[in-house]
Amino acid sequence: RDGSKGWCHSHVKIIRKALSEEKRVSTKTSAADLVTETDHLVEGLIISELQKRFPSHRFIAEEAAAAGAKCVLTPSPTWIVDPIDGTCNFVHRFPTVAVSIGFAVNQELEFGVIYHCTEERLYTGRRGQGAFCNGQRLRVSGETDISKALVLTEIGPKRDPATLKLFLSNMERLLHAKAHGVRVIGSSTLALCHLASGAADAYYQFGLHCWDLAAATVIIREAGGIVMDTSGGPLDLMSCRVVAAGTREMATLIAQALQTINYGRDDEK
Amino acid sequence: RDGSKGWCHSHVKIIRKALSEEKRVSTKTSAADLVTETDHLVEGLIISELQKRFPSHRFIAEEAAAAGAKCVLTPSPTWIVDPIDGTCNFVHRFPTVAVSIGFAVNQELEFGVIYHCTEERLYTGRRGQGAFCNGQRLRVSGETDISKALVLTEIGPKRDPATLKLFLSNMERLLHAKAHGVRVIGSSTLALCHLASGAADAYYQFGLHCWDLAAATVIIREAGGIVMDTSGGPLDLMSCRVVAAGTREMATLIAQALQTINYGRDDEK
Repeated sequence: RDGSKGWCHSHVKIIRKALSEEKRVSTKTSAADLVTETDHLVEGLIISELQKRFPSHRFIAEEAAAAGAKCVLTPSPTWIVDPIDGTCNFVHRFPTVAVSIGFAVNQELEFGVIYHCTEERLYTGRRGQGAFCNGQRLRVSGETDISKALVLTEIGPKRDPATLKLFLSNMERLLHAKAHGVRVIGSSTLALCHLASGAADAYYQFGLHCWDLAAATVIIREAGGIVMDTSGGPLDLMSCRVVAAGTREMATLIAQALQTINYGRDDEK
Repeated sequence: RDGSKGWCHSHVKIIRKALSEEKRVSTKTSAADLVTETDHLVEGLIISELQKRFPSHRFIAEEAAAAGAKCVLTPSPTWIVDPIDGTCNFVHRFPTVAVSIGFAVNQELEFGVIYHCTEERLYTGRRGQGAFCNGQRLRVSGETDISKALVLTEIGPKRDPATLKLFLSNMERLLHAKAHGVRVIGSSTLALCHLASGAADAYYQFGLHCWDLAAATVIIREAGGIVMDTSGGPLDLMSCRVVAAGTREMATLIAQALQTINYGRDDEK
């Protein structure tokens, strides 16, 4: 049951301990974009350990980016790290919090590892080798009909009235299309893991980042699913937007239903 | 870790097994109001076992009500049963599904038991005796400021355009009030358990039923929280609407922010 054995066990312990404590919280791009000391601490530990083993590799990581580091995916081997996905949940001790680590070479995602910190679920995917949760093979849903779909999304960090109107209008469009339900769990990464495991039929979001997507993208693709741009075109990891689904039909229907919310690009910040 | 020992263990096994299988799904009041054979099976088992031990007691239960049984809370000892809360999640194998059993005497809630089927968390509360999760005492959040709050809600079964507009407008009001986040997890009962455990600061919903609320109300009150009507007045278990929060200040602020969505009453259906 302890899927954390063998990777980052000490980081997960830090996160679990911090979950039960009062936290000092800072804000980043908006009042809803939170960061804690634990995000910084865990990111630093992950990167310093990886750097020791792989001194020539590059890193793209959430808190380093927030501090001004450029997010550019070069052909070099690159680790893409979110130390705590679901920071707002983490601050509130809402038990939906994950560590996400993706790895790319030649700008192609090679593998991804996501750990659900409170439920001890380890999701892994490696290109051409399948996707697993605690050793069990993952398989996406085969649903193609929105009116039978459970759809996941997240609100995104921008909370100005115009952005909120678009966010709510997108949710309204899917509910008008008679989606069974829309869920908002507060962690893009874990929502994407639910999609990979077939527990949901589609996911979309505007305002997520490459570190939310990198590991999950490999896992979903290896579970048989589709990850694409909200325009219906191929995924652009740096475009801050995504549609994912178990089937191409479903992903296309969702993409067609959505209005775009502009969040810029990770590699132009 | 196996909190299910000693109560309804066999029912939980039925639900867990069914979670991994394809399900025949029927609809009730709307295309989003689902029911499966497992809901009926588990409800029947719970009621028949309780009836054997307590032949004079009365029952209010979700699927019996859907089949036309009246929901009237008399002074008689009454069990209020939701065999599967989060049926839409259950149908999709989305792992947020619970059994909820409340008990009232003289129209007063005496105890409540909620079991989170996939995460093995048993929530219990008894009037005057505290609330617990797997033996650990629960305590609500003390937050009084909406701009620091994590707020939970559910969409509700009605999906006509006017109802959806009101649902989304209520969510917009809370996001304009700068709530840290709004979460929709697909189980009223488990959302209320998160509130009781301090993992969220407030919950509101229009369109839930007395069997979603009965057990959770005792648990929240015993964890120090407030459960009230969306008008700001005292809770009416049959009114199909609720605001709950860790503090009276927070509950009142949320109630003031909401527009009413009319779902009628459980005891007038």
